[in-house]
Amino acid sequence: MVQIGFDVGGSKIAAGVVNERHKILARKEIPFPTGTSYKIVAEIMAVMGEELLKSAKLDLSSLQSIGISVPGDIDEAGGTVLNAHNLQFHNVPLQKEMKDYFKEIPVFLSNDANAAALAELYAGAFRGVKTAVLLTLGTGVGGGLILDGKLFNGGQGHGVELGHMMLSHNGSICSCGNKGCVETLCSASWLIREGRKAVIEYPNSLIFLKAEGSIEKINARLVIDCARDGDAVAMDIFTRYVDQLSSAIASCANLLDPEVIALGGGVSRAGEFLFAPLRKQVEEKSYFHVPYRIVPAELGNDAGIIGAAMLINNK
Amino acid sequence: MVQIGFDVGGSKIAAGVVNERHKILARKEIPFPTGTSYKIVAEIMAVMGEELLKSAKLDLSSLQSIGISVPGDIDEAGGTVLNAHNLQFHNVPLQKEMKDYFKEIPVFLSNDANAAALAELYAGAFRGVKTAVLLTLGTGVGGGLILDGKLFNGGQGHGVELGHMMLSHNGSICSCGNKGCVETLCSASWLIREGRKAVIEYPNSLIFLKAEGSIEKINARLVIDCARDGDAVAMDIFTRYVDQLSSAIASCANLLDPEVIALGGGVSRAGEFLFAPLRKQVEEKSYFHVPYRIVPAELGNDAGIIGAAMLINNK
Repeated sequence: MVQIGFDVGGSKIAAGVVNERHKILARKEIPFPTGTSYKIVAEIMAVMGEELLKSAKLDLSSLQSIGISVPGDIDEAGGTVLNAHNLQFHNVPLQKEMKDYFKEIPVFLSNDANAAALAELYAGAFRGVKTAVLLTLGTGVGGGLILDGKLFNGGQGHGVELGHMMLSHNGSICSCGNKGCVETLCSASWLIREGRKAVIEYPNSLIFLKAEGSIEKINARLVIDCARDGDAVAMDIFTRYVDQLSSAIASCANLLDPEVIALGGGVSRAGEFLFAPLRKQVEEKSYFHVPYRIVPAELGNDAGIIGAAMLINNK
Repeated sequence: MVQIGFDVGGSKIAAGVVNERHKILARKEIPFPTGTSYKIVAEIMAVMGEELLKSAKLDLSSLQSIGISVPGDIDEAGGTVLNAHNLQFHNVPLQKEMKDYFKEIPVFLSNDANAAALAELYAGAFRGVKTAVLLTLGTGVGGGLILDGKLFNGGQGHGVELGHMMLSHNGSICSCGNKGCVETLCSASWLIREGRKAVIEYPNSLIFLKAEGSIEKINARLVIDCARDGDAVAMDIFTRYVDQLSSAIASCANLLDPEVIALGGGVSRAGEFLFAPLRKQVEEKSYFHVPYRIVPAELGNDAGIIGAAMLINNK
C-alpha cells in the first residue's frame, strides 16, 4: 500500500506517492497562486493524486491514505484549517472537501511543522528515537515534538508552538502579539534585520559588498557567509545569534532532555560553522551540562510530502 | 498491598504508609540534621518503616514497595543520588543501602519535584489527566511533567528542570550557572529580594511596617499580603511577579498545550489573588489565546510521601 502526501506551501503545492519504506515513488509540483480558493486547491490536489498514481503505475486500490501538510493552525479532529495566513485560508473544511474526491480513502490534515517532525521520525534524524525536538529556522521559527516515539500535537490538540516559547521576557514584539518569543531572536528574519541595520552603520562591511550595495539583497545566508569569511560586523551578528539560539535550545533541553534536537529551515544549512559553537554553548548553558545531539534535519524539501504521507501512522 | 513513601527534606524525614487508594494510613516525621550520612539516613528510614507498618497494623508481607523522594539530581536507573546539596549527598547509593534492610522489597528513588507531580497525578490536581505541568514556587522553582498520563523524567532520564527554562535571555545569574532562568524571576526568593530592596527605597511602605522594621522578616507571603492590602510598593512587586510568572507559564503552554497547570510551593498559597490575574495574562500571552486550567497543587505537605509511594506505578 502507498500513501499520497501533499505539501501545500505559500507558492506551490508539492505532492508525492510514498511507499512503506518512506520513499517517494513519484513526485509532482505545481505553482499555487495566493488567493486560490480551497475548493480549487482540493480539485488540483485530486487531479495531482490521480496523475501521481498513474506515474507510479498504481491505481486507487493501492492507495491507503492521503495526508495534507498546511502552513497554519489546524483543527485535526475537525479536519479544518483554522488559519493559514499565507494561503488566505480561514476555517476551511479541507479534509471534507478532499474526501468528496477520494470517497473511501482516509484524509489527514496537519500543520507543516508537525509534518516535518513526523517525516524526520520515519525517514530522517529521529529514526528510532522516542524524545526529539525539531526547530525550523526560517522567516519564523516553527517546530515539532516527538514524545514517546510519536508526534505530539499538544495535550489539548491545539498544537505546539516552539517558536513562541519565551526567550526574552518583555523583549521585541512577536508576530503572535506576545513579546520576546524565540521567533523574535532565532529566525532568519532576525539575521536579515540585523544585517540590514549593520550596513547602515558600517557601510564598509563585507555584508554590503556581497550584497552589491543593495539592502534588499541581504539575507540570512549572506550574513552567515560574511561571518564565515571573517567579517567582524557579520561575526558580531552571528555570535549574538548563536548565543540566542543556544539559549532557546538549552531551554528545550532542560524541559524535555531530548535524545535528538534537529534544526531545519534555511539557517540550518550553515553547517558545522553553526552547529559546532551551538553544541558547545548548549552544553554549557543546560542544567545537566551534558552533550546533546544537535543535528541538521535530514529531509529538507521532501519533509512536507513524507510527513503528510505518514500522518496515518500517527493516529 | 501498601507502599511506604519517604520524603527526605532538608530538615526532616517524613514518611507514610500509603494504601491503594493513595491515602496515608500512618504517618511519621523526624528531624534530619544537615550532614547526616546516607547510611544513618537509611537506618533511620528502616526503623521508621517498621514502626509505620506497626502503627498501621500491617506487617512486611503487606508491603509492596518503598519509594524515596529526595531534593536533588537522581540517577533513577542506577539508584543513586547524584547531588542533593541541602542534604550534602553526592553520588550516594541510597537505593542499594535501603535494599539491605528490605531485602525482597523493591526500592524506588526520585527527585522531590517528580514525586510531587506523581502525587498530583494519582491523588490531586492531575487525576485523569494526560498532559500536565507542575511548577513549585519556593526558594527555587522546580516542577514535574505528566505526558501521556505518566510522569516524564526526560527523554534521556536526566530529569526535567522547569525552573531552568529560559525566561530572560542574558538576565540575572541563576543558581545553575546560566542566566535568566525562570527560577531567577518566579521564585519566592525573587519576591523576598524585591521586597527587601523596596523597603530601602520606601521605608514608609506597609512592607516595612508589617515586617516590624526588620528586613529579615520580609518573606514572600508578607510581600503578597501587603499587595493584597493595597500597598503601592508591594503591588508594584506583585504585578511584576505575575507578569514574569505568566510569561513562564505561557511558554509552557505554547510548548505542551497542557490540560492542567498546577502551582505548588509557598507562593501558590496566595490563592485567587494570584491565580485570577495569572489566568488572564496566560490566556493573553499564549499563542492559542485559550483559557488554561491553572490551579493550586492539591497535596501540599503530603505530596512527597504520596508521590514516593506511587513511584512503583510509574515503572
